[in-house]
Amino acid sequence: MADFQENETVRMEAFSDGVLAIIITLLTFELKAPEFKEEYTSRTLFWELLKQWPAYVAFLLSFATIFVIWVNHHRMFNVIRRSDAMFLYLNGLLLLLTSLIPFATNVLATYISTSADELPVAFTMLLFGAIAGTFSLMWKHATTDYRLLKRPAADVRVRMVQNGFLISASIYAGSALLALLLPMVGILIGLLMVVYLSRLKYDRQKVV
Amino acid sequence: MADFQENETVRMEAFSDGVLAIIITLLTFELKAPEFKEEYTSRTLFWELLKQWPAYVAFLLSFATIFVIWVNHHRMFNVIRRSDAMFLYLNGLLLLLTSLIPFATNVLATYISTSADELPVAFTMLLFGAIAGTFSLMWKHATTDYRLLKRPAADVRVRMVQNGFLISASIYAGSALLALLLPMVGILIGLLMVVYLSRLKYDRQKVV
Amino acid sequence: MADFQENETVRMEAFSDGVLAIIITLLTFELKAPEFKEEYTSRTLFWELLKQWPAYVAFLLSFATIFVIWVNHHRMFNVIRRSDAMFLYLNGLLLLLTSLIPFATNVLATYISTSADELPVAFTMLLFGAIAGTFSLMWKHATTDYRLLKRPAADVRVRMVQNGFLISASIYAGSALLALLLPMVGILIGLLMVVYLSRLKYDRQKVV
Amino acid sequence: MADFQENETVRMEAFSDGVLAIIITLLTFELKAPEFKEEYTSRTLFWELLKQWPAYVAFLLSFATIFVIWVNHHRMFNVIRRSDAMFLYLNGLLLLLTSLIPFATNVLATYISTSADELPVAFTMLLFGAIAGTFSLMWKHATTDYRLLKRPAADVRVRMVQNGFLISASIYAGSALLALLLPMVGILIGLLMVVYLSRLKYDRQKVV
Repeated sequence: MADFQENETVRMEAFSDGVLAIIITLLTFELKAPEFKEEYTSRTLFWELLKQWPAYVAFLLSFATIFVIWVNHHRMFNVIRRSDAMFLYLNGLLLLLTSLIPFATNVLATYISTSADELPVAFTMLLFGAIAGTFSLMWKHATTDYRLLKRPAADVRVRMVQNGFLISASIYAGSALLALLLPMVGILIGLLMVVYLSRLKYDRQKVV
Repeated sequence: MADFQENETVRMEAFSDGVLAIIITLLTFELKAPEFKEEYTSRTLFWELLKQWPAYVAFLLSFATIFVIWVNHHRMFNVIRRSDAMFLYLNGLLLLLTSLIPFATNVLATYISTSADELPVAFTMLLFGAIAGTFSLMWKHATTDYRLLKRPAADVRVRMVQNGFLISASIYAGSALLALLLPMVGILIGLLMVVYLSRLKYDRQKVV
Repeated sequence: MADFQENETVRMEAFSDGVLAIIITLLTFELKAPEFKEEYTSRTLFWELLKQWPAYVAFLLSFATIFVIWVNHHRMFNVIRRSDAMFLYLNGLLLLLTSLIPFATNVLATYISTSADELPVAFTMLLFGAIAGTFSLMWKHATTDYRLLKRPAADVRVRMVQNGFLISASIYAGSALLALLLPMVGILIGLLMVVYLSRLKYDRQKVV
Repeated sequence: MADFQENETVRMEAFSDGVLAIIITLLTFELKAPEFKEEYTSRTLFWELLKQWPAYVAFLLSFATIFVIWVNHHRMFNVIRRSDAMFLYLNGLLLLLTSLIPFATNVLATYISTSADELPVAFTMLLFGAIAGTFSLMWKHATTDYRLLKRPAADVRVRMVQNGFLISASIYAGSALLALLLPMVGILIGLLMVVYLSRLKYDRQKVV
């Protein structure tokens, strides 16, 4: 590792990769075989598996959101050269909030098909919004005076990314409110946000 | 990390390695000590452990398949030089499908020795087939016009690998159908496919 | 990896990163949805979620402490050039003690709001103190005769870091005693120690 | 990553590190708070925690053994330059066997203090023996004609390491038999083997 400065964020990325990889994988723990009953045939088992749809919806929403969090983390660190203490703690906050997603998913999967379905969706959307807000703080801190950026920083789309995170945080907050009336619409917006967040461009040149 | 372009897929590989390592390790969670009963001796415990054979079969099939997925992922990235957005999302789809294997294993271990044994095997085979299909899409995308390949691309066995994945996807799909009649034959084919998939060669020169 | 000596601690850091990332992520397993009851509405679910505050407090304390353990591990290895057998085993001891934190968190979350609340807090504080003590042994071993340090070692604040760990170990031990009388004060001290330990400086120049 | 050949085992090490880090961390899942009872005080909780000693013994034995497996894996790859297909699969077998340790630990912790204590200890020792045997196969394959070794291979203590693994495998097999009579002696030998295996030297020069 010739250049020490290039190397500075390597372990931070490795630790974050580890945490994000574990969080995304632990989601499958929500998915369990229906409890065995003696009289089950493949046909009845099929319907029992279908009845677990709330768990599948919660799993898909959370998996896609965590994947897009990783994609943005990856892209942001692609244009960042070094770190400082504040950036380290903001990254820690990001990991803390993201590691609450399996908990939110658990609540969501348990209550999405019950009469208490508004709160879990609103809570999940608020959590996603807080994550987008933390991304926005990280980006703000990294780009002020081009503090932590790689040269040539001229290629970095500072404002476009910042706007992207602020818009996302606002939409998530709005859909948290909306979820109190129409929970399923909240989930739909959550899925659409994955598409939006997957398209933030950090660099004029590179596409990944 | 002297060459930036060489470096481009490093974090994608690290994240994928993390996810695959976690998925393969979580499989052991299927394996639990038989519930303690006061009168057990080592002899009765031995038979109780043997009675858990469905869990062992499901564990072995899934462990071997995930390992061979990792081997192919590793070999494919060995001849790939860079990434783009589409390749990133195909890789995300691959991880999503692979992270469903512990769920399939859980269903398989619960129902493999019951009268509802056809569906779990068919579901597992379909999942494996979808994973082989995703590999084929990744390879297609990476090799069209030698887009993402390392030079010298001439050494890469483009068509042979593509055929390997398409054949695998077809056999898995066929054994999903077959499993509806003869579930155990489906599992046997799944184990044989591990051997087949471990022998795909991406490069004329290198063997790993 | 041009320089072999620089490379020497890379895999030790990678393994430690992996273990710490998994430990910090497994903490979320403490957080579970309240068991479903037919009559729940979003309003009652909200209060049921609030009632789980002991789990949230235990989660927050443990997450913040493990993160600050990672930060110090990261900073220490930033000024360390190579490893030897003793350092390897001290690192293993550190990982062993840290991997007991989820167990301590589990006991804490279960008993923090009961009449048996003194012991779990005292146990947790003792564990944190033992971790600080192990850090101090690692640092002592690495810095004696500047054995394992990177050049220029003159920039390394050897004594200041050593004092920081010894002070931390003492405060944790003291708050373990205090926790036998006032458990909640013990938890508060634990949270304050996170702030203190996040500010240890290993290098006169670098801030991360 | 200038030298492609140096790089060849990097991802294999990363994947193995990931799997080993997860396995060692999952062991803590054995350790759970004693079930809450209304009348518990810190004093009674203390004794309830002590009563879980079988889980602590099983945890300690498994943690130490997996750590020493990682240490040997790390040291072996320190003197290995490249990989081939057979080495890849032997490494997969090593990971498969190692990932059974949490299962063995679970059986051990459940039955160590019952009348069925012989079998779990014997099974654990056999598993450890099979792991030592797999290490010996990997080393045999890597060192025949100095196939996969780094230059200068003259410094590598080929025979000494091979003997170390064969001796370990034999002692583990012997203590599996012994455990059928004296289970606790089997566990003691298991702990002593950790010390023995931590002292295998792969290189005349380097100590780590």
